[in-house]
Amino acid sequence: MITQSRIKSSNPGRGTYDITRDLNACVSAAGVNSGLAHVFIHHTSASLIICENADPAVRSDLEAYMTRTVPDGDPLYRHSQEGPDDMPAHVRSVLTQTSLTVPIFDGRLALGTWQGIYLWEHRLEPHTRTLTVTIQSE
Amino acid sequence: MITQSRIKSSNPGRGTYDITRDLNACVSAAGVNSGLAHVFIHHTSASLIICENADPAVRSDLEAYMTRTVPDGDPLYRHSQEGPDDMPAHVRSVLTQTSLTVPIFDGRLALGTWQGIYLWEHRLEPHTRTLTVTIQSE
Amino acid sequence: MITQSRIKSSNPGRGTYDITRDLNACVSAAGVNSGLAHVFIHHTSASLIICENADPAVRSDLEAYMTRTVPDGDPLYRHSQEGPDDMPAHVRSVLTQTSLTVPIFDGRLALGTWQGIYLWEHRLEPHTRTLTVTIQSE
Repeated sequence: MITQSRIKSSNPGRGTYDITRDLNACVSAAGVNSGLAHVFIHHTSASLIICENADPAVRSDLEAYMTRTVPDGDPLYRHSQEGPDDMPAHVRSVLTQTSLTVPIFDGRLALGTWQGIYLWEHRLEPHTRTLTVTIQSE
Repeated sequence: MITQSRIKSSNPGRGTYDITRDLNACVSAAGVNSGLAHVFIHHTSASLIICENADPAVRSDLEAYMTRTVPDGDPLYRHSQEGPDDMPAHVRSVLTQTSLTVPIFDGRLALGTWQGIYLWEHRLEPHTRTLTVTIQSE
Repeated sequence: MITQSRIKSSNPGRGTYDITRDLNACVSAAGVNSGLAHVFIHHTSASLIICENADPAVRSDLEAYMTRTVPDGDPLYRHSQEGPDDMPAHVRSVLTQTSLTVPIFDGRLALGTWQGIYLWEHRLEPHTRTLTVTIQSE
């Protein structure tokens, strides 16, 4: 059994945004007890990660790491039509995930205690991102 | 319902090669309306990415980024039997994807407008790479 | 058809540990001929990779690369309660994989000749990690 649904997720610009609750709502709506949940983001300048969900400093440190490793305005790039954060957003997306697959157990995402699912907006400006959630069960 | 097929993809050496059309051909052949497509590359020195598909500079900038971050001939490595691009190819593969899963909708890969699927050859010499495509539907 | 099982994997601390055999045991136990195997690690400071399995230097070089790129004790981070390897472990996890999906063919994981599946422990101390394996077949 496969059910698909589409989510729109708006954000105020660069940063990580917890979408765990939205995904669990899709699992509940599908009425599935066990299986797999797949979430796909239809963009190349925002991505998905599973990350520690207890201390917000983990995610700000992660942002700091990326800012240092994939700096905005890097003269290395030719693709900069949309600004200094344009090409870095594509690199950050390629280094993280465009989709995630998570087991479902007891009617919920079977995440570890400290795991949250985050949409990582890499562009500086606010964006509305589209995601497709596919739930598979017996 | 699960259908599997194998693809051979030849390339002239390091670079990114669009395989979106090959994958959509597998989806069409499976006669599937909605579901998931999974593509797996059977190698550890070539990998898969989803990337911006409009401006080729995005992919040459991505190559430039990797060339700087994971340089060939790095004295850090002991594994260099096959040349200066041997170990960097393994690192690049680990930092990107060995497989991708994409939703199928209306009989096609439900990619975003600017998303393409690329095989990233990390070795300098020409290679023929093997991929397995698995299509899941109800 | 979907079958799920849980694995505990203990390690002596930072390093890569081959779990291919454990996963093939799950495939055998499921009695599946063809399909997909999904493995998920329920942690954010250990991760999964598919890597060259012939020369152990590949994995020590990979460790050397990560040690240089994501160094322990980096003053960049605020999240360091659990020690100098705490935040680097989260970054390393985000740069690699929390889950992997591999085709099953002829009753076994359809890996390439040189592909092995590894649990990458990023913390220095010994840990026991929990994984969920989900097998899908027709």
